[in-house]
Amino acid sequence: MHIMITGAAGMVGRKLVEKLAGTRTLAGAPLERLTLLDVIEPAAPAGFAGTVQRQAIDLATPGVAQTLVESRPEVIIHLAAIVSGEAEMDFEKGYRVNLDGTRQILEAIRLAGQKDGWCPRFIFASSIGVFGGALPALIEDDYVLTPQTSYGAQKTMCELLLADYTRRGFIHGIGIRLPTICVRPGKPNRAASGFFSGIIREPLTGKEAILPVGTDVRHWMASPRSAVGFLMHAIELDLARLGNRPNLTMPGLSVTVGEQIAALERVAGHKAVALIRPEPDAMIDHIVREWPQAFNPARALSLGFRAESRFDEIIKVFVEDELGGRVP
Amino acid sequence: MHIMITGAAGMVGRKLVEKLAGTRTLAGAPLERLTLLDVIEPAAPAGFAGTVQRQAIDLATPGVAQTLVESRPEVIIHLAAIVSGEAEMDFEKGYRVNLDGTRQILEAIRLAGQKDGWCPRFIFASSIGVFGGALPALIEDDYVLTPQTSYGAQKTMCELLLADYTRRGFIHGIGIRLPTICVRPGKPNRAASGFFSGIIREPLTGKEAILPVGTDVRHWMASPRSAVGFLMHAIELDLARLGNRPNLTMPGLSVTVGEQIAALERVAGHKAVALIRPEPDAMIDHIVREWPQAFNPARALSLGFRAESRFDEIIKVFVEDELGGRVP
Repeated sequence: MHIMITGAAGMVGRKLVEKLAGTRTLAGAPLERLTLLDVIEPAAPAGFAGTVQRQAIDLATPGVAQTLVESRPEVIIHLAAIVSGEAEMDFEKGYRVNLDGTRQILEAIRLAGQKDGWCPRFIFASSIGVFGGALPALIEDDYVLTPQTSYGAQKTMCELLLADYTRRGFIHGIGIRLPTICVRPGKPNRAASGFFSGIIREPLTGKEAILPVGTDVRHWMASPRSAVGFLMHAIELDLARLGNRPNLTMPGLSVTVGEQIAALERVAGHKAVALIRPEPDAMIDHIVREWPQAFNPARALSLGFRAESRFDEIIKVFVEDELGGRVP
Repeated sequence: MHIMITGAAGMVGRKLVEKLAGTRTLAGAPLERLTLLDVIEPAAPAGFAGTVQRQAIDLATPGVAQTLVESRPEVIIHLAAIVSGEAEMDFEKGYRVNLDGTRQILEAIRLAGQKDGWCPRFIFASSIGVFGGALPALIEDDYVLTPQTSYGAQKTMCELLLADYTRRGFIHGIGIRLPTICVRPGKPNRAASGFFSGIIREPLTGKEAILPVGTDVRHWMASPRSAVGFLMHAIELDLARLGNRPNLTMPGLSVTVGEQIAALERVAGHKAVALIRPEPDAMIDHIVREWPQAFNPARALSLGFRAESRFDEIIKVFVEDELGGRVP
């Protein structure tokens, strides 16, 4: 099997590549080749016995997508995107990368498939950002998508392309709406959602973290390990089971900031919690209160997708995967 | 007020232009100018006192949209599209006209507005084709859009663009999801939905009509006069009332084929009904049974949009507007 990954140098991409590097067979076929793409050259995974090709490219550049499909991978995992903050700041870049970039890959696949019948599995990383604006407390699988960011609009449009290209037989598509990923490793960033990870990651490494919202704020989260698990499951899933709705809200954990902090105290004690400094920011508070709070992802659960069910597990994943298993 | 209409030579476009030609003021402002665009030059409306400009153009041609926005109309009514059958047959043309054509107009407006702050009202004719696939018997305003045609996917993507461009302050947008229009004047066509009009129009003019589906088939309809009424209402509506969801399912009438035929008999007697010849077509029957049957268009109703409430009224509109008021 040959798997191509766009956005392979991103946080989820790197962890997915690491997981794949340790995988010998998928859906009964030997994993022989990985093609890793990003705007910067992705790192080579350790311990992979097969062939790895790595390339720094901008997928939104016209003509690039046509060259990529020449190797006819069986599976394409499309993670590449600019994040919601940047898509909101730079309107043109957001549409160019997130919408046109995706469409150009899909078009290149369609045109290549017209020649030789190639029809790859296409796994698209969507986002719960497709939901927005006066949401119910619990969002069902058949709830309307009314995104309130340009990023969300672009992801929704890509979901529609994915569904139409799948229906027409050009790809075998599946769209994976990722929850907010927590705990994100790395440095604090300026994303409005950054504090959900920051209030866990920073105290666990002895640093102060800012909490800009009230502890009653509720949101939908899953660990990086779960995100990789969703994508691995999507590689092997029988896509006929998706029927005519190939885009799925992934499972996650609905948790309040207060519950996050209580879990942190159970794992790392009061000295960790004491490093969280409340510094209310009305704008961030307003933004995150418009985000989804909880889903009933019945379809994804019935298809075997799984995430954490307690926030303690999410912290445990961070401690194991990023801190070598030790709570400082 | 200056109103620009794309698709002005189409069935709804012609009737809208006719209505506007007899309108002196809209939202308190005198209607002074109409710009009528289509791939064929639209006819000049009779009896309009203001300025009319008519032009045959292909909106999907790069560069055309930029020239159109030079006149800075206060209102743009975007009806131009290729129909669902053609979008299904010619995949590339459907995306080029229905998606790229709309996006190019929106982009031209955005770039023009960056220069001088122009922000027109943009009224987009969407369709109940945005819904599809395992639908509930009654579709609520917050039901997910999972179109099952390329046309429906394109219309949904345009709705998302409209919402995002509106949210960003580039346009004042409103999307109007039209029901199946019935009774369509003109000759029978090969659209899968053609018989809904054919079984009324043909018998009322003494001609035979083919009925390819069972009389229990239920669908969502409104007259051409209602379609024009929706667009006229959208010109004058206070768009602040739309909140952050500017796309609306329009009111209509949920009616079975059997109820259509019973109404025809009340209006034109048994001799008309006798001209309907059942000729079951399994493929058409299958297609139309996947279409929406009924909506609860609560938002549009609360905003003052109105349609017919009995199929007899729909027939009456056809007789008045197309047959000079006389049932033959």
